[in-house]
Amino acid sequence: MQGRLIVFEGVEGCGKTTQIARSHLWLQDSGILESLQTRGNVSQLMITREPGGTEVGRAIRQLLLYPASQELVQNRTELLLYAADRAQHVEEILKPHLAEGGLILCDRYTDSTIAYQGYGRGLDRALIDQLNQIATSGLQSDLTLWLDVDVEIGLARAKQRGVRDRIEQATIDFHRRVQQGFNELARTYPDRMVRVDASLNETEVAQAIQTILQTRLAQWYT
Amino acid sequence: MQGRLIVFEGVEGCGKTTQIARSHLWLQDSGILESLQTRGNVSQLMITREPGGTEVGRAIRQLLLYPASQELVQNRTELLLYAADRAQHVEEILKPHLAEGGLILCDRYTDSTIAYQGYGRGLDRALIDQLNQIATSGLQSDLTLWLDVDVEIGLARAKQRGVRDRIEQATIDFHRRVQQGFNELARTYPDRMVRVDASLNETEVAQAIQTILQTRLAQWYT
Repeated sequence: MQGRLIVFEGVEGCGKTTQIARSHLWLQDSGILESLQTRGNVSQLMITREPGGTEVGRAIRQLLLYPASQELVQNRTELLLYAADRAQHVEEILKPHLAEGGLILCDRYTDSTIAYQGYGRGLDRALIDQLNQIATSGLQSDLTLWLDVDVEIGLARAKQRGVRDRIEQATIDFHRRVQQGFNELARTYPDRMVRVDASLNETEVAQAIQTILQTRLAQWYT
Repeated sequence: MQGRLIVFEGVEGCGKTTQIARSHLWLQDSGILESLQTRGNVSQLMITREPGGTEVGRAIRQLLLYPASQELVQNRTELLLYAADRAQHVEEILKPHLAEGGLILCDRYTDSTIAYQGYGRGLDRALIDQLNQIATSGLQSDLTLWLDVDVEIGLARAKQRGVRDRIEQATIDFHRRVQQGFNELARTYPDRMVRVDASLNETEVAQAIQTILQTRLAQWYT
């Protein structure tokens, strides 16, 4: 058995949550998961997310997205809180599940920190890499699906959904820089990170993701 | 004007909180503060603490000391949460106050992290130094008063006070290692860190601290 970590990334409103749920259903309903389990390739399939994949993480997420006061969360504080959430998530959820041969679909991981805090807020990249290394103790994703959608479309979708949190109130410019971050990451790590055109409709995006997953699963488990 | 950061350190029950309050009163009542202010040496005098010196920090402190669930806060999560609290405290409270020429009495700072997480929990010292550096961006205390009390006496005092939190439930052995940490720090940084015999009675300890403070203030502001 060999566990794998599949991460979904992208700006607000790119459809991560929906596509993770659809991928989960598809892996189950198509019989692919059962086949992998029968052949002894993987154990369980799970969905998780950052921030907030653990109890401690949910308290941190609460603090990050819905601060009790108007007090400004400093940039480095934010970065360290995301790292704390990640450290807890890696130790408590990701590592044990991967060690048992689990397949994990994870909503955001290290690339979000680089895109949002690095490109978005302009925090020092070396500092971010250092904290990602501390938080993950080196655990990387096996595959990262970047759901690439135009920033305006994404924000309009998020707004429709009624989502308003600290990050989504930030400027369009901020989200453009985040988008550029994902773009550069995808070009720097073409093996690990695959771009998905998320401007298509939900079913088309789901099919594109299924094609990518099918190819990767075949490579991993032959 | 030249602000100064004076930190009080020590194991549970060493009397930090009481002695900070007494030092504050003494600086005011003795006329020393007024004299320093009149001569234009310092502006305001303030008391603060870590963790929990800011709104964000109080939420983090809550999470660290009184976890909502039985879920174990991982060692690295704990370290990153303390660093997040510190980053917020340094940016929001310490740096602005020092820049205005303030005199700060602070309950715990970087040495606590080295003693508790490093010596106590056995976390990698290089990692702790790295995180202290990130959280403080280099801001060190001007003077650290280490209130040295026997671990058993300290814990008995803390128990009398009715204090029971995550850290104080830990073992005597853990606190002995923390104590050893403070001891080694005091020997490594004899200029910055001064040992105070905190096994004496409250008034004797207060007088010992006043003598040290008087000497330092004279050195700083002549």
